[in-house]
Amino acid sequence: MIVTLLTDFGDLDGFVGAMRGVILSRAPGAQLVDLAHHVPAGDIPKAARVLARSAPYFPPKTVHLVVVDPGVGSARAAVAVEAGGHTFIAPDNNVLSDVLARMGEPAAIHEITPEGVSATHVSTTFHGRDLFAPAAGLIAAGAPLSDLGPRREGLKRVYQAEPQPVEGGLRGQIIEVDHYGNLITNLPAALADARGLTVKIGARVLKGPQPSYSSVKRGEPVLVIGSEGTLEIAVRGGSAARRFGFGVGATVICGCLEESA
Amino acid sequence: MIVTLLTDFGDLDGFVGAMRGVILSRAPGAQLVDLAHHVPAGDIPKAARVLARSAPYFPPKTVHLVVVDPGVGSARAAVAVEAGGHTFIAPDNNVLSDVLARMGEPAAIHEITPEGVSATHVSTTFHGRDLFAPAAGLIAAGAPLSDLGPRREGLKRVYQAEPQPVEGGLRGQIIEVDHYGNLITNLPAALADARGLTVKIGARVLKGPQPSYSSVKRGEPVLVIGSEGTLEIAVRGGSAARRFGFGVGATVICGCLEESA
Amino acid sequence: MIVTLLTDFGDLDGFVGAMRGVILSRAPGAQLVDLAHHVPAGDIPKAARVLARSAPYFPPKTVHLVVVDPGVGSARAAVAVEAGGHTFIAPDNNVLSDVLARMGEPAAIHEITPEGVSATHVSTTFHGRDLFAPAAGLIAAGAPLSDLGPRREGLKRVYQAEPQPVEGGLRGQIIEVDHYGNLITNLPAALADARGLTVKIGARVLKGPQPSYSSVKRGEPVLVIGSEGTLEIAVRGGSAARRFGFGVGATVICGCLEESA
Repeated sequence: MIVTLLTDFGDLDGFVGAMRGVILSRAPGAQLVDLAHHVPAGDIPKAARVLARSAPYFPPKTVHLVVVDPGVGSARAAVAVEAGGHTFIAPDNNVLSDVLARMGEPAAIHEITPEGVSATHVSTTFHGRDLFAPAAGLIAAGAPLSDLGPRREGLKRVYQAEPQPVEGGLRGQIIEVDHYGNLITNLPAALADARGLTVKIGARVLKGPQPSYSSVKRGEPVLVIGSEGTLEIAVRGGSAARRFGFGVGATVICGCLEESA
Repeated sequence: MIVTLLTDFGDLDGFVGAMRGVILSRAPGAQLVDLAHHVPAGDIPKAARVLARSAPYFPPKTVHLVVVDPGVGSARAAVAVEAGGHTFIAPDNNVLSDVLARMGEPAAIHEITPEGVSATHVSTTFHGRDLFAPAAGLIAAGAPLSDLGPRREGLKRVYQAEPQPVEGGLRGQIIEVDHYGNLITNLPAALADARGLTVKIGARVLKGPQPSYSSVKRGEPVLVIGSEGTLEIAVRGGSAARRFGFGVGATVICGCLEESA
Repeated sequence: MIVTLLTDFGDLDGFVGAMRGVILSRAPGAQLVDLAHHVPAGDIPKAARVLARSAPYFPPKTVHLVVVDPGVGSARAAVAVEAGGHTFIAPDNNVLSDVLARMGEPAAIHEITPEGVSATHVSTTFHGRDLFAPAAGLIAAGAPLSDLGPRREGLKRVYQAEPQPVEGGLRGQIIEVDHYGNLITNLPAALADARGLTVKIGARVLKGPQPSYSSVKRGEPVLVIGSEGTLEIAVRGGSAARRFGFGVGATVICGCLEESA
């Protein structure tokens, strides 16, 4: 059984290591696979995007363990969610929203309780080790979700901003800055099917989309269709985030090439 | 068989990759699991804490390979240690002290010799690849410790500072700064069972412990019981290390709430 | 079957996670092993060295997936290469040169085509997910290279600078700076067999090689034989890169100890 791990724990302290041990103690032979561990501390929207980007590619019955949990020890619930044939173990803090939008609504939701994972002690600062990893191990070992705790209805979900029509185009946002400094927008690439586009970021207007990052000279900005079907602003061989000085939340305006030219 | 890896090699050069290859060549089918690889270069006390934090959660017979080894190529010994049903492969540089304090004293200690791992060449700069990984692979494949080299008595162990009584309380230290910037002290949380405490760091006095990081407002400091049973100073949604400007070794004074209030 | 992964994707976005899912969907039970993921963005020479440093230690039939691919979406080919009993899946951008120099010339080279991996859609920005990972999964599941696409002759190979004779010695280069800040040169350590050497870097002349990093006092520079048989400049307990302010490409001059003394 595959268990994926997604956290904001980094690779400094051994916190992920402890969780790996807990899972393997409960589910000997489980195959542990990392999604990412350098999500910025407490950045739930980023974690939600990472999960949606990677989880759907795994085979059915995969267990996904997500611990980006700034509310650890507070009243937020710990949940186990079955959706799209996979199981997700996570805090109920909106981190599953994007992946559920992509893989389908939950078939079942259960709370994870200390009793459900036979925990003798649950710390207030490390539910990853004491609650979530034991739950993932139990599910990977074949336990039904109902073993973990009582059934729940619904999850915390937060509305996500969609691009808005404005005169002559769409107003969207940068929703993510990736490892390379590429600026990922929420402007749908489908806009680009018929004809060329412009995307305005700050005072700069980019035309495109171009076929690839390599369509421009080294050091030049380029508008491409990103790997998840939205428009993306990059700098060939460089960082668009540094070049333009914009980050998540910045406004981008998409227009028709004819109008801006 | 599970083999865990703990190093200060980072993820830049492929040094850990080479060790993984060596292990899998000696022990096909071994399950490789990372504890951490971004331990600061040569930071043995930190590595010792990471190991103690994570190794005990693994199932019996796990082999733990630790290469935080600033003395590589010097006269320090390479050892294989059986303790608590696990096997530890490491330089004899005090890195096992914390985990042995937790899992029990060694049942057997053997030196790892080039002959013991059938090494034709041992570099002076990468014993991880040439000595430790081969040893871990052999043990994971079922070899007895005695194959690796002669029996030894005792390991290098270094005294660790314990909190000291001072008038009206205890004087302890920050012993670790984690990925989030939380300041982990050596002040035992058991002090907090009966009544409230104060912890003084620099000029600042914190009261607590609080139930969780979320017990205070965003950006506020908070005193909590850490996941290993000692008092911990955090800043909700931020870094206590940056906020207070203190690191490992800084003094913290624990007092009774009544006295400081 | 073992599949290794080497990328410049970092650990922030889940790009490697998506590839892991794709591989496991095609090759259930494949053993995924990381070589490194923090290769600097687009740094093909570094990736080539990391691969050459680690791949040869894996057992025969290992599949090595390399995605350091600044030309993604351009006309550069995607290739599957059999060499030394291993299979390499990579862009044809010179990233395999060093490992082939070490493991032997290709026994077979095939192009990877979208049809070969049954891709319904190939993005222009993430061939790792859409082309390379599917190919690695198919090979790990037992498919022959010929399934991936047509046979090719030859790979893009770039000449690498060798040390040049100069009066009284050899002029080489720093070819890599590792995680510790050690400066790895292309000066062969075999030079050092008979007698002592000097290595000049900037205005500084180092004598050696010394037996190990620990042969000098803490904070002092030291010339040692690196783990791949070339001379290496380090600072005990510190970073030679920061100390000397030199990086990849800087000139180093090797001479005989007698002449410089």
